[in-house]
Amino acid sequence: MIKESQVSNKNMTITLAHGDGGELTHKLISELFLKYFPYEALQALGDAALLPPPAGRIAVTTDSFVVKPLFFPGGNIGSLAVNGTINDLAVTGARPLYLTLGLILEEGLSYSTLEKVISAIALAAQEAEVAIVAGDTKVVEHGHGDQIYINTTGIGVAADNIDLGPHRVEPGDVVIISGPVGDHGLTVLATRENFGLQGLKSDCAALHKVILPFLKALGPAVKWLRDPTRGGLATTLKELATSARVNVYLNEEDIPVREEVRGAAELLGLDPLYLANEGKFCAVVEKSAVDQALIFLRQHPLSKEATLIGEVREGSGRVYLRTPLGATRELHYLSGLLLPRIC
Amino acid sequence: MIKESQVSNKNMTITLAHGDGGELTHKLISELFLKYFPYEALQALGDAALLPPPAGRIAVTTDSFVVKPLFFPGGNIGSLAVNGTINDLAVTGARPLYLTLGLILEEGLSYSTLEKVISAIALAAQEAEVAIVAGDTKVVEHGHGDQIYINTTGIGVAADNIDLGPHRVEPGDVVIISGPVGDHGLTVLATRENFGLQGLKSDCAALHKVILPFLKALGPAVKWLRDPTRGGLATTLKELATSARVNVYLNEEDIPVREEVRGAAELLGLDPLYLANEGKFCAVVEKSAVDQALIFLRQHPLSKEATLIGEVREGSGRVYLRTPLGATRELHYLSGLLLPRIC
Repeated sequence: MIKESQVSNKNMTITLAHGDGGELTHKLISELFLKYFPYEALQALGDAALLPPPAGRIAVTTDSFVVKPLFFPGGNIGSLAVNGTINDLAVTGARPLYLTLGLILEEGLSYSTLEKVISAIALAAQEAEVAIVAGDTKVVEHGHGDQIYINTTGIGVAADNIDLGPHRVEPGDVVIISGPVGDHGLTVLATRENFGLQGLKSDCAALHKVILPFLKALGPAVKWLRDPTRGGLATTLKELATSARVNVYLNEEDIPVREEVRGAAELLGLDPLYLANEGKFCAVVEKSAVDQALIFLRQHPLSKEATLIGEVREGSGRVYLRTPLGATRELHYLSGLLLPRIC
Repeated sequence: MIKESQVSNKNMTITLAHGDGGELTHKLISELFLKYFPYEALQALGDAALLPPPAGRIAVTTDSFVVKPLFFPGGNIGSLAVNGTINDLAVTGARPLYLTLGLILEEGLSYSTLEKVISAIALAAQEAEVAIVAGDTKVVEHGHGDQIYINTTGIGVAADNIDLGPHRVEPGDVVIISGPVGDHGLTVLATRENFGLQGLKSDCAALHKVILPFLKALGPAVKWLRDPTRGGLATTLKELATSARVNVYLNEEDIPVREEVRGAAELLGLDPLYLANEGKFCAVVEKSAVDQALIFLRQHPLSKEATLIGEVREGSGRVYLRTPLGATRELHYLSGLLLPRIC
């Protein structure tokens, strides 16, 4: 047992010795991590967690989070690391079950900042009903990190009848977005650069609670799902068009963008279609199911502004945007814009 | 499709735009990662890999690697990231199946260094017969990383009859180490500090190819397994003694240490018992099975120097070392030694 007398001082900072696998590593694990992550598989502190066999195909995804700053309106690196990975499972049609947590801490990180992040992770995991089942902590020297980097790997289970992907997308299908785009990317940028813009808030949220019922209700009429994070909606749809060997036509005036985001993006010369989202998904559905899809989505708080934004046509991997003035411009992959460390 | 004309220049370096999710991210994935990782689940480039249900309990472990320098005699950050995570699965008694790969690259990293690491990962995964099924790449600004940090999360499957852990360890059992200790930690330290010591080589290796047959051959006579990485053999056995509420007695002269390691460690004032290993495991077995265990292990190249090093007695979490001169000293958790970034 770790000696109880050595209670951590909340003013203390992380040192290299917290990462050496010895006494201070044990203190950190027992006093901080085990306090917040009460799952049996983790508490055993074995080399690997042993978990019951999932009933179906397993879904696996990994994501590292280096967002700067650590805290921003609507979220923080902890909630982002949980929700972002959950969303990657959800858009595959998988029910998220387990997360692993890999921390790279910078020497000098304050213990209280670490605890704020860890408690945010615990809260987000609890709300999403996923268990943190394994973890690892490394410490790097001051000047070789940036407070805290987080990897979360997610494991879920997918029902056998789920078949989503670009291979199912064909001309005639329609494109739906679950709500306004650009909030997360713009909020992080504005917070980092201290632009003092009002009304911005990240959309960071776990989407499986709307996506899984949506898939159940609509069945195979849902053909493809994706959460448009880095690169934004435009890059995500360019990827779809490329993989599915189709063209996608979008109506600019149908794509929802919150007024605050539109105004701030114009001010900064940014296009909301290329800004990251962390609580939105894009769906391709059969045209005949579009009304049912929109009615279903609009009754859920996470997708109450779901909108039909475009259609799929025969083509060769291009995405076109029809502007309100009747012009058409082609959308490419994000390129040349420096938008680092958004997630 | 990424334009073929934009073939990557091998003299190029990683920029922030390689991490923005746009055009350069796609180039990096298609030109480098997909070249080395040919697995179907990864090639689909979905948000999560969908994999067949494993036959048994699943084992999950995660580990981040920040070793410095990236390359050292006997291994590199890539082989370490594969083998280290495989070993955490193996000592749980699980057969490793899948790995995920999370990269945090520092702006300015040379493409050729990245390719060397990626090819090492691919080779180690191939040799170990595990598939890289999901990946993620982030780029941080120069001065906020150290070339490359890697997270690997491992998923394996454990037979239902496997039951290893401190709960099975009891007085009378014996402790075996699979070979000489201290090689990895000392090699990395000596390479980093450019000590110019001869004959040092990391023991970095994937251990499942000896551990799984060992468990099959010995059955429940094997009670506990662990790979003594950070903190070394001493810390690992202190953890065991603490969890199992027993004492462990070791004979110092029985613990194998290679001559080069013993000499270099003495020179540097380090104790090999606290140095990390990356290709060794420690086992607690029933006393009646010790001969069978040693005969089995010594016929395998990865454990041909397996040795009986101690015994388990009633106690309260202490580890004692009997020196050749007949004295006894207690071993505690690693503490106060700065051995950062060994793995």
